[in-house]
Amino acid sequence: MAVEIERKFLLASEAWRSGAESAVRMVQGYFELLPPSPTVRVRIAGEKAFLTVKGPVRNISRSEFEYEIPVADAEAMLREFCGGRVVEKVRYLVPYGGFVWEVDEYFGENEGLFTAEIELDGEEASFSVPPWLGPEVSADRRYSNGALSRNPYRRWNNAPKQA
Amino acid sequence: MAVEIERKFLLASEAWRSGAESAVRMVQGYFELLPPSPTVRVRIAGEKAFLTVKGPVRNISRSEFEYEIPVADAEAMLREFCGGRVVEKVRYLVPYGGFVWEVDEYFGENEGLFTAEIELDGEEASFSVPPWLGPEVSADRRYSNGALSRNPYRRWNNAPKQA
Repeated sequence: MAVEIERKFLLASEAWRSGAESAVRMVQGYFELLPPSPTVRVRIAGEKAFLTVKGPVRNISRSEFEYEIPVADAEAMLREFCGGRVVEKVRYLVPYGGFVWEVDEYFGENEGLFTAEIELDGEEASFSVPPWLGPEVSADRRYSNGALSRNPYRRWNNAPKQA
Repeated sequence: MAVEIERKFLLASEAWRSGAESAVRMVQGYFELLPPSPTVRVRIAGEKAFLTVKGPVRNISRSEFEYEIPVADAEAMLREFCGGRVVEKVRYLVPYGGFVWEVDEYFGENEGLFTAEIELDGEEASFSVPPWLGPEVSADRRYSNGALSRNPYRRWNNAPKQA
């Protein structure tokens, strides 16, 4: 079990691309859950797959339990249990100022959206702000991938314009 | 991924006890799910723990995905995510006629209930009926452990009298 403390931002420019060290395609789906259930996510990331349980968000912290599973299991669970609640993206790892940022470029129903995240040791931890970073959306639940699987970016009214 | 075909029975007597080869104490809890979600179960069985996802029941078959996880994770998930939806039982393995029966003796809110189950290769597979076997309840969803976690046996009206 880990406690996950993440801060999430939109992007101000495409300048992060020159610093990207790797790119992994991800397809992930969500079970339909009754609040206050945890989120259950099935993710295929490149050649690997994971089943992840995440507790409710408290401020910007949440408990997280993640297990690697066979890709064939993940494919079956995406098909059987996740309905249309699926998010497709490419995750780039972008080192900056001693942190590794995860920049996600979304596709499908979330095309046009980019986000950048870092994991921190504490809710008060400080970090250097990269020049390509846009406004913070950590507290805006619409940007959680679970929410994006149900109400994707392209269906939003007045979605903020991105880089 | 496995497809699970199980038949479940009540017990007619305590005669199965003399044939029991092992006993494992189990504590298992369930996430609160919105139909038609799969069932998500966290189980501690003796010194091991498992996270299990089971699809909807079709006749007596359902898909099942099970992963061993750290016991500490299971304890945390039972506490954080399963509320009161917890079933306690001891599972005995009882060989009979070439099959190994799982006889469950329930405790807590399900005390007084005993069930016996076998897993079969197909929905039409045959098996020898042990003398201690009672009426079949495979199709009675009240006896699924998920249902017993929400509506335990001791709260039933007119619960069938057991051995």
